Amino acid sequence: MKIGIAGLGLIGGSLALALRGAHSVTGFDTAPAARDAASRAGIAMVDRLEDLAKADAVIVATPLAAIVPTLAALEPDAGAAVLLDVASVRAPVEDHVRRTPSGPPIVGLHPMAGRSAQGFAAADPALFAGRPFLVVPTQRADARAMAVAGEIARAAGGVVTVCSAAEHDRIIAVISALPLTVSAALSLAAADGVRDLTSLAGPGFRDTTRLALTSLDLGEAMLSANAANVVDAIARLRRILDQIEQAVADGNVAAIRAILQRAAETRGALD
Amino acid sequence: MKIGIAGLGLIGGSLALALRGAHSVTGFDTAPAARDAASRAGIAMVDRLEDLAKADAVIVATPLAAIVPTLAALEPDAGAAVLLDVASVRAPVEDHVRRTPSGPPIVGLHPMAGRSAQGFAAADPALFAGRPFLVVPTQRADARAMAVAGEIARAAGGVVTVCSAAEHDRIIAVISALPLTVSAALSLAAADGVRDLTSLAGPGFRDTTRLALTSLDLGEAMLSANAANVVDAIARLRRILDQIEQAVADGNVAAIRAILQRAAETRGALD
Repeated sequence: MKIGIAGLGLIGGSLALALRGAHSVTGFDTAPAARDAASRAGIAMVDRLEDLAKADAVIVATPLAAIVPTLAALEPDAGAAVLLDVASVRAPVEDHVRRTPSGPPIVGLHPMAGRSAQGFAAADPALFAGRPFLVVPTQRADARAMAVAGEIARAAGGVVTVCSAAEHDRIIAVISALPLTVSAALSLAAADGVRDLTSLAGPGFRDTTRLALTSLDLGEAMLSANAANVVDAIARLRRILDQIEQAVADGNVAAIRAILQRAAETRGALD
Repeated sequence: MKIGIAGLGLIGGSLALALRGAHSVTGFDTAPAARDAASRAGIAMVDRLEDLAKADAVIVATPLAAIVPTLAALEPDAGAAVLLDVASVRAPVEDHVRRTPSGPPIVGLHPMAGRSAQGFAAADPALFAGRPFLVVPTQRADARAMAVAGEIARAAGGVVTVCSAAEHDRIIAVISALPLTVSAALSLAAADGVRDLTSLAGPGFRDTTRLALTSLDLGEAMLSANAANVVDAIARLRRILDQIEQAVADGNVAAIRAILQRAAETRGALD
């Protein structure tokens, strides 16, 4: 396949590096530094976004706020190309397709992979090895477009999970936005409560709050673009916090142990 | 100094390894496996807890629930020895000293260091390098006992921070019990909300929930022995969660950004 990639940060850059063995990959980024870094890594580059459209598929891997504008900019030239986008919240893309129901096929292709380092410099062809790709049809998706998305996910080393946009955004609120929220809240609560936090915080505290370092643009978009699901996820967390608080306030050791044991089993199943 | 160490798990074992260069260290553990492992690592062992007391200082580094019984068992034989204990919640030791106001000096010596691996096998003489030791006087502490505690903390590579028992327990509720609580609550909320959590959870989610793997005995003791402070810490967290939820529900992007930015700055200051 000929595959264009718009946005060569961590995700787009890693996709370019992972896919170029089996496919013909061309890249574009609005930032000269990203273009230079990708070019030095041997990724073929085009000078204008529209030039990516002469391909079987174009993957839009820009920051979340730029995904719909980039899809819209590609559409006039897309021809037979399938448009894929890595948006970590589907609602804005759903809105776009609802407003513009005709146009090239669009499928969400959201890899559940990341790291705190950003930019092409952090890109790694192994980033997606064994990781799920949430493949999310839009109203404009057809069987061919879904097959292209699946083929690309597998070529990048990933595992395909198909879900609806609504289900995607509900899952992401729990699995990504809620950990970010909790990390941020814990950082602020601790700083508010402990004067010498910097010297006292140990590795456990640091791990639990690491996601508070998420880039501001991504964090804001994860929360604001998915507001209803995020509010539901916070409510879900609060119910369990309430249970723990009640058990602690009551001195109910059996209840404390039961909750901690269920949590350890749940978390242990992930390792 | 002659230093006895009761309990040769991660903390006691690491103290033994860190202190044996500059001091004469003798160890004891109720578990034959820990005794054998420490002995193989070259730690001199005694056969009975009471034999540790022929020393300038005895450090009680058992699990939290055993600390007061072990202190009490050492007291009749302590002679001139200073008793130190690593209890991560001071309230039970405070209760003991209040009930038994006369006896050998007792000082809390709580290193803010740890890792998820447990037992002597995980012990590491570098565990305390540059880490704070909270040195907590009890009613029975005198100047000599405080000096001994400080000397041992520094000999282990740590940095001394003196605080009251009340302040210690307030800090620990925020910095240790609250991250545990949040990790456990997030694990359970996510498992409740996402069917395929095991395949979908990425490194960010795993880091944020790692403390849910805290040993059940330690976790339960951290919450139940420090209940009032833990309830306060949860309330502190809930206030910030409420602010985030309100900003998200209102679609108040400026407020979301302001909160996330403060959290990132707070967390960034720890690195």
